[in-house]
Amino acid sequence: MYDLLVINADILQIEGPSASFLPRHALAITDGRIAAIAPTISPGLAREVLDAQGKLAIPGLINAHAHTAMSLLRGVAEDVAVESWFNDYIWPMEMNLSAEDVYWGSLLGFAEMIEAGVTCVADHYFAMDEVARAVDVAGMRAYLAQVFFSGPQENDQLATSVAFAERWQGSAAGRITTGLGPHSPYTCTPSLLQRTAEVARQHGLGVHLHLAETADQVAQSLAHHGKTPVALVRDVGLFEVPTLAAHLAHPTQEDLAILAAADVRVVSTPKTELKMALGVTPVVQMRQLGLTVGLGSDGAASNNSYDLLEAARLIALLEKHTRRDAHILPLGEALALATREGARALGLAGVTGELRVGYQADVVLIGHDAPHLQPMHNPVATLLYSARATDVDTVIVAGRILMQGRQLLTIDRQRVIDEVRQRAGHMVIRRANTQVARYPTE
Amino acid sequence: MYDLLVINADILQIEGPSASFLPRHALAITDGRIAAIAPTISPGLAREVLDAQGKLAIPGLINAHAHTAMSLLRGVAEDVAVESWFNDYIWPMEMNLSAEDVYWGSLLGFAEMIEAGVTCVADHYFAMDEVARAVDVAGMRAYLAQVFFSGPQENDQLATSVAFAERWQGSAAGRITTGLGPHSPYTCTPSLLQRTAEVARQHGLGVHLHLAETADQVAQSLAHHGKTPVALVRDVGLFEVPTLAAHLAHPTQEDLAILAAADVRVVSTPKTELKMALGVTPVVQMRQLGLTVGLGSDGAASNNSYDLLEAARLIALLEKHTRRDAHILPLGEALALATREGARALGLAGVTGELRVGYQADVVLIGHDAPHLQPMHNPVATLLYSARATDVDTVIVAGRILMQGRQLLTIDRQRVIDEVRQRAGHMVIRRANTQVARYPTE
Repeated sequence: MYDLLVINADILQIEGPSASFLPRHALAITDGRIAAIAPTISPGLAREVLDAQGKLAIPGLINAHAHTAMSLLRGVAEDVAVESWFNDYIWPMEMNLSAEDVYWGSLLGFAEMIEAGVTCVADHYFAMDEVARAVDVAGMRAYLAQVFFSGPQENDQLATSVAFAERWQGSAAGRITTGLGPHSPYTCTPSLLQRTAEVARQHGLGVHLHLAETADQVAQSLAHHGKTPVALVRDVGLFEVPTLAAHLAHPTQEDLAILAAADVRVVSTPKTELKMALGVTPVVQMRQLGLTVGLGSDGAASNNSYDLLEAARLIALLEKHTRRDAHILPLGEALALATREGARALGLAGVTGELRVGYQADVVLIGHDAPHLQPMHNPVATLLYSARATDVDTVIVAGRILMQGRQLLTIDRQRVIDEVRQRAGHMVIRRANTQVARYPTE
Repeated sequence: MYDLLVINADILQIEGPSASFLPRHALAITDGRIAAIAPTISPGLAREVLDAQGKLAIPGLINAHAHTAMSLLRGVAEDVAVESWFNDYIWPMEMNLSAEDVYWGSLLGFAEMIEAGVTCVADHYFAMDEVARAVDVAGMRAYLAQVFFSGPQENDQLATSVAFAERWQGSAAGRITTGLGPHSPYTCTPSLLQRTAEVARQHGLGVHLHLAETADQVAQSLAHHGKTPVALVRDVGLFEVPTLAAHLAHPTQEDLAILAAADVRVVSTPKTELKMALGVTPVVQMRQLGLTVGLGSDGAASNNSYDLLEAARLIALLEKHTRRDAHILPLGEALALATREGARALGLAGVTGELRVGYQADVVLIGHDAPHLQPMHNPVATLLYSARATDVDTVIVAGRILMQGRQLLTIDRQRVIDEVRQRAGHMVIRRANTQVARYPTE
């Protein structure tokens, strides 16, 4: 007896450059895993049946780099350079966020992600116990790391990050995995990064950090340390543990060789990188070197949304344009970045990111009947270039239905919106009286 | 007595670099025009009242370059270079489209546009009588031109384009305006373009064409004619009539001076230009030179959607990235490209594209209550960077409600989808046996 049977689904198996299309197939789920995929499976064999007629079934999208609670700061800093964005807006406002703010901001962001077909997120923020609580409530899958910086409290912060990782590792019925979260080599000293590497090795943890986001960061690292941020992070031993590095818009040729040799997993967040004019992760070049590259949203204060279909579309459009070659990042490969490759980046290869028997049942159903999706000559093109996040109809994580017919089942949507609105109203006022460290910090 | 009163709307006046926000205002409509905008207007003064609580009111979006019926070809040619796109897919399939196909494809595209808040479109295709019929049925506003090419039938084709323009000018209660549609200088000889200019002058018509889309086109024009496509078109006299030029991704410095001197109106279609790796219209540079620049979708076979919010978002992201300056194309200016500037490009300045008393009542209401739009610290940022086309709730053109609560009122949505699906099924089969002229044509 299956727990849940999805029938009549137009299944997309995203397999890299290509994708196979299994029209009107059935997908059976038992104990949170995909138990069978076949043209027909008898409804009598399942406790619950979900008719997916007129819908594409795809693996849940994976957001490989986010600061979800920054949904609270959506739209507070627009059309400004990165220095002003940090110094005049984000850091002053973040200093005033309470742990409760982070809980509600995360829940709002997870509501948005579920509504957009995102089933798994790598979150990198502070007050992470609140984020983990929100992940548990929402029913999502997550890779979580508590961020820390150099400063007078750096030892406590590192210890807190370790304690968080130990406390939540494998929790939420295995949906939560954890790592350590040094913010970046421009906000953490080499010695703190070195201790982070040691502690990570001792505890069998990976790390998640920002790396080589801007040309300025690279120049400052060369000026202060005589090496690029990538070389610095390698030299302190951080790449000896599984490393998830966000942005990486400015690697040198030597950096790329270092990253490939160390099997560093990279996350591109194209909308933030474009919008803040940071420069963009060279995704295709990295993939040609064998690097694993996932896609992320970054926080909603820079993105300003948690839409992974948009991220996949943006990186495909941008790489075609930059290389003046329309063949670059074909449909299936662009979508794989937001699914299978994201899973690999988060250490979840074989667990999620694909619709295969034995994998966790992280499944998204997307309606394809609307005028903007018709006719459907090519379902993969429909998904990548025509579908909108709002076309997502149903979201399943580990076999549990989190949204059906666009109704959220785990999150009280209106309650979350009301909480966030109330908190957002206070935020702008609180900002005025705050002073914090300036970016760039070196 | 007003015909229609919209109350409680959060009105966005998009004014170029900035935008003003009029929270919970009323907008009254009489005889298809905006009659009043005020904090409150008594519902007793109107025949019909529409409550826009929790919704942004913006001017209807303007799609300044489309081949709407190419919705039929959505997704047929992906990840291919422009030569193959034309020769192996689009032209063979278009040769087999019937006038009826064009009617239903246009209606599908207009359904998609209305659902995305697009109220006005510049359409450039063949079988334009069918397109005009569909515009009339849909209730949209349109600037229409029948396309023609050089070849044995060029005189007939030019005459047909003129007859079409004369027949439909000012029709649909003034919602339709018309011009002539020479395809481009790479498919029309200089002598045909010259005759087009003469005829346009005689009939008081403008022209709508493709211009300098690819670097190859410019190189071939220089090789064959000793001048750029822009200089060629100027020399035959075409710029002496109002000219709407699509793409223009490869102007020289001299071309830019020519375009500015002649007040040529430019349309950028960023998604097509990126996706087909054509190069992108230098929008900011052109605006600095005083040129009018609107935004378009192009056809759905290249785009693959008719989403003008996406176009505005893409061009803002891309210009910030290309110039490595996050201040470029600020929120209000990017949105103005899809509204006020589009109206100017289509010769409709003062008619549509702004929410002002005396303008046509082309109004779009966008719900802002969903998680991905909350909190709304900055309504203009919400609209440009967080909203999706599917957040559009209500669409009004010339005072008539075309969609309310996402229900289309002028188009039988299911009928259109059924018709298009049936026709799309035949299309792929018919393609195989067709041979047509090759791109590039010179």
